[in-house]
Amino acid sequence: MIRFYNANILMPDFSIKTGEVHTDGNKISYVGDPKQTDLNFETTVNLNGNLIMPAFKNAHTHSAMTFLRSYADDLPLQQWLFEKIFPMEAKLTPEDVYTLTKLAYAEYLTSGISACFDMYFYPESVSQAAIDTGFRTIMCGSVSGSDSKADIDSALSRLEKFYNTYKNFDKHGLVSYALGFHAEYTTSRPIMEGIAALAEQYKAPVSVHNSETAAEVAGCIERYGKTPTEIFCEIGIYKYGGAGFHCVHMTDNDLNLMKDRGCYVVTNPASNAKLASGIARLSDMSQMGVNLSIGTDGPSSNNALDFFREMYLACVLQKLLKNDAAAMPAEIILKAAFDGGAMGLNNANTIEAGNLADLTVIDLNQPNMQPQNAIVKNIVYSGSKQNIILTMINGKILYKDGEFMTLDTEKLYKEANGIIRRMANDNTNIQ
Amino acid sequence: MIRFYNANILMPDFSIKTGEVHTDGNKISYVGDPKQTDLNFETTVNLNGNLIMPAFKNAHTHSAMTFLRSYADDLPLQQWLFEKIFPMEAKLTPEDVYTLTKLAYAEYLTSGISACFDMYFYPESVSQAAIDTGFRTIMCGSVSGSDSKADIDSALSRLEKFYNTYKNFDKHGLVSYALGFHAEYTTSRPIMEGIAALAEQYKAPVSVHNSETAAEVAGCIERYGKTPTEIFCEIGIYKYGGAGFHCVHMTDNDLNLMKDRGCYVVTNPASNAKLASGIARLSDMSQMGVNLSIGTDGPSSNNALDFFREMYLACVLQKLLKNDAAAMPAEIILKAAFDGGAMGLNNANTIEAGNLADLTVIDLNQPNMQPQNAIVKNIVYSGSKQNIILTMINGKILYKDGEFMTLDTEKLYKEANGIIRRMANDNTNIQ
Repeated sequence: MIRFYNANILMPDFSIKTGEVHTDGNKISYVGDPKQTDLNFETTVNLNGNLIMPAFKNAHTHSAMTFLRSYADDLPLQQWLFEKIFPMEAKLTPEDVYTLTKLAYAEYLTSGISACFDMYFYPESVSQAAIDTGFRTIMCGSVSGSDSKADIDSALSRLEKFYNTYKNFDKHGLVSYALGFHAEYTTSRPIMEGIAALAEQYKAPVSVHNSETAAEVAGCIERYGKTPTEIFCEIGIYKYGGAGFHCVHMTDNDLNLMKDRGCYVVTNPASNAKLASGIARLSDMSQMGVNLSIGTDGPSSNNALDFFREMYLACVLQKLLKNDAAAMPAEIILKAAFDGGAMGLNNANTIEAGNLADLTVIDLNQPNMQPQNAIVKNIVYSGSKQNIILTMINGKILYKDGEFMTLDTEKLYKEANGIIRRMANDNTNIQ
Repeated sequence: MIRFYNANILMPDFSIKTGEVHTDGNKISYVGDPKQTDLNFETTVNLNGNLIMPAFKNAHTHSAMTFLRSYADDLPLQQWLFEKIFPMEAKLTPEDVYTLTKLAYAEYLTSGISACFDMYFYPESVSQAAIDTGFRTIMCGSVSGSDSKADIDSALSRLEKFYNTYKNFDKHGLVSYALGFHAEYTTSRPIMEGIAALAEQYKAPVSVHNSETAAEVAGCIERYGKTPTEIFCEIGIYKYGGAGFHCVHMTDNDLNLMKDRGCYVVTNPASNAKLASGIARLSDMSQMGVNLSIGTDGPSSNNALDFFREMYLACVLQKLLKNDAAAMPAEIILKAAFDGGAMGLNNANTIEAGNLADLTVIDLNQPNMQPQNAIVKNIVYSGSKQNIILTMINGKILYKDGEFMTLDTEKLYKEANGIIRRMANDNTNIQ
C-alpha cells in the first residue's frame, strides 16, 4: 500500500481537491480528505501540494521505432518511408525490438504516460519488455498482405495466434492484445474479410490506421468506390468497435459511422503535422460525440513521445483549422489524453477508488505552472515533460524525480546506439 | 573564469566537437580540444558528454504578462483581449511588473533562453528585474496613441526619454532599449512619423507588431491603401532596420521590403496558432533571405515561454502550410532560435571565443535524445525543457540542475498568486 499525501487531486470532473490518494496492490483504494489511519503503508509520498492525476494513455504508437528517431527528417513522405524507414525496419531482430521498446518506455515514463496501444512486430519481444519494465501495453495486430493465398493464410493465422496468446492479460495485468491490421492500402480485401470474421468470432474490436493521408483515401475510393471507414464498416471490421488511427481525412459520414459503432478516433497531431498529412477535424468530432483519444505515433515520424506536445497541438491546430481561438477547449483534450478506451482500458481514466493505480504527478512548483489561475489550462497550454515528477503504473512507482526504477537507461542508450551503428554498417537485410 | 569540460560543443556550422569551453568575465575565452592548463578557474563543470550550445534568444515577448497565464483561454480573440486582458493590465503597478517579469525570467532560464526583446511598460521595473536576476533584456518601445496633440507629445517624449535612459547598456551589459511602438492599428500617423524622425536622428532601428492578424492588415489597407510594412517603409520606420513581430500576413512585396532593409521577421508560432491568427510564411521568408528570429510572445496568449515548443511549431506548421514534409528543415529554425540580431544582439549567436558567454547545456542522457542519429534534429524535433540542465548568461551560471541561483522562485510564486488575487478582488482600475 502506498500513500500520497499533501496532494492536489485532479478529480473526475476536473475540479481540484486537496487530500490523499492511497493505492493497494494495483488499484486505487482511497481518494479523499486527509485522514488518520492505522494502515501500514509500505511507502508514503509527500506531494507538497503538487497535482496527482491520471496518467496519459498513448493510444497509438510504434514504440520500437525509437531507433529511427531523427534518422531521416525533413524529407518528402514517400522518400522518407520507402528509402529510409522500411529498409531499416527490415534489419530489426527480436532482441532489437526488446531493447528499443524499453527505450520508448523510458521516454513514456518521463512524459507521464502509463499505457500504450502498440502496433509493431515481434510481440514476444514487446510483451517481455513490458513485463520486465512494468509498463502497461496493449499490442495491436499489425498484419497486412496481398490477396495471394500465402499472404492471406499467413496474416490471419498470425493474427489469431497472437490474439489468443496474449488477449487474456498476463498475470500482472500489464500485457494484452487486440485485433488489428496495418491499413486498407496495405491489406487485401480477403485478409480484411478474414479479420472481420475473427472480430465476429471473438466479438472483438478491431483497430487500424484509417485515412491518415489524402492519397490513402483517394486510393481506397479508386479501389472500392468508398472511403476506408466505409469499406471497413461494409466488411464488418468495426462491428464490435475499435479505433481508427490518425483519421485526418474523414467525411461526416465516416464520423457518423465511427460514432454509431462506439469507435475511437485516435489523433496523432505531431506526426500528422511533421509528415504534412493534415489536421484531423477534432472539433467536429468532439461536437458530433465521437470518442477521442491521443497517440504519439512512432518516434521516427514525431520525433518525441511527449504528451504535452500532442495535447498542445491537438488544441491549437483546431484553432487554426477553424480560424477561431475558441475552438477546442483544453478540457476536452485533457480528457482524451487520459482516455484508454481505444485500447479497451476503461478503468484508469480517473482518480477514483477501484480504478487501476496508473497515475502521474505534475510539479506545480515550476514557473510555467504559476500563477495558478487555472490548473487544467496550465497543464495543456503551458505544461512540459519537465513537470512530470512521478509516474506510477499498476500500483508501482516506476519513475520519480528523474530516476527510473526498472530501467537501466545508460545501458539502453548504449544498446540503441549500437543497433543503429550495426544497421548502418550492414547493407543486407537480415530479416 | 569557468571551465566546461567533457563537453560536446555545437559549433557555428552545427557540427559537434568534443572538447572544452572556457569563459572569462562575460565572454567565451576558449573553445577547442581538451587542454592542460594552469589557469585558475573559479568553477569547473564536468558536462559528462552533454551538449553545450548558444542559449536561445526570445526575440518577442511581453514578460510581465505571466500573471495572465491561463487566465482567459479558449475565448474568441476580441473578447479575450478587450474583456479579459486589457482590464487586468490596467491594474498593474510597477512593483507587480518587477515581480512578474522575474517570474518570466525563471521560466526563460528553464527553457535555455538567455535574452529577451521585451515589449512592456514600466521600464524601470523591467530594468531592475533584469539586473537583479542577471537576465539580458533589450526593452522595446511600446508606445501608441491617437493623433491628438496630447497623445503625440506623450508617446514621443516617453519613447525618447526611455531610449536615452537605457540605450547605452548598463554597467553589467545586461539592459538596453530599442526604439519601437505597439502597432500600426493602435498608433496614429503623426506618432509614427515622429518615431521615424527619432530613427533618423539616432540612426536606430525600430521594432513593432506587424501584420499579426488578417483584420489588422485589412484595416491598414483601408486607412492607408497600403499594408503595414508598406506604410512603415513609406514613413521611414524601418530605414535603419528593425523587426516585425508576428508577420503572419505578409505579401511578397512586404517581405522584399523587409529584406532590402535588413529587417528581422520575428515569428511567434505558438501564439499565432493559439489565437487563430494564422501561420507565418517562414519557408518563403527563408528562401527569400529574410532574417528570421523566434519569440514566445507573452504568456497570456501562448501560454508557456518554451522555446522547444516554438521551434517544433515553427518547423511543422510550415510542413502543413506547404503540404510538404520537406519544408523548413530543422537547422534553419535552430539558427533562428539562437539569433539575437532582431534585438541588436549579434555577439551571442555562436559558441566562439570573444562572443558573450550566453550558453545552455542540453542533457543528451535522456530517452528523448537517444539514439544520437542527428543531434540537431533531436533538439528541434524531440527536445523539451526537461533537457535543459544549465543556463549561463553574461558569464554567470543562473540555472543548474533545476536550481535558480539568483531567483527565489517560491517567493515569486506566492507574490504572483497574490497579485492576481488582489486584482480579482479589485473592480476598479488602479492605474
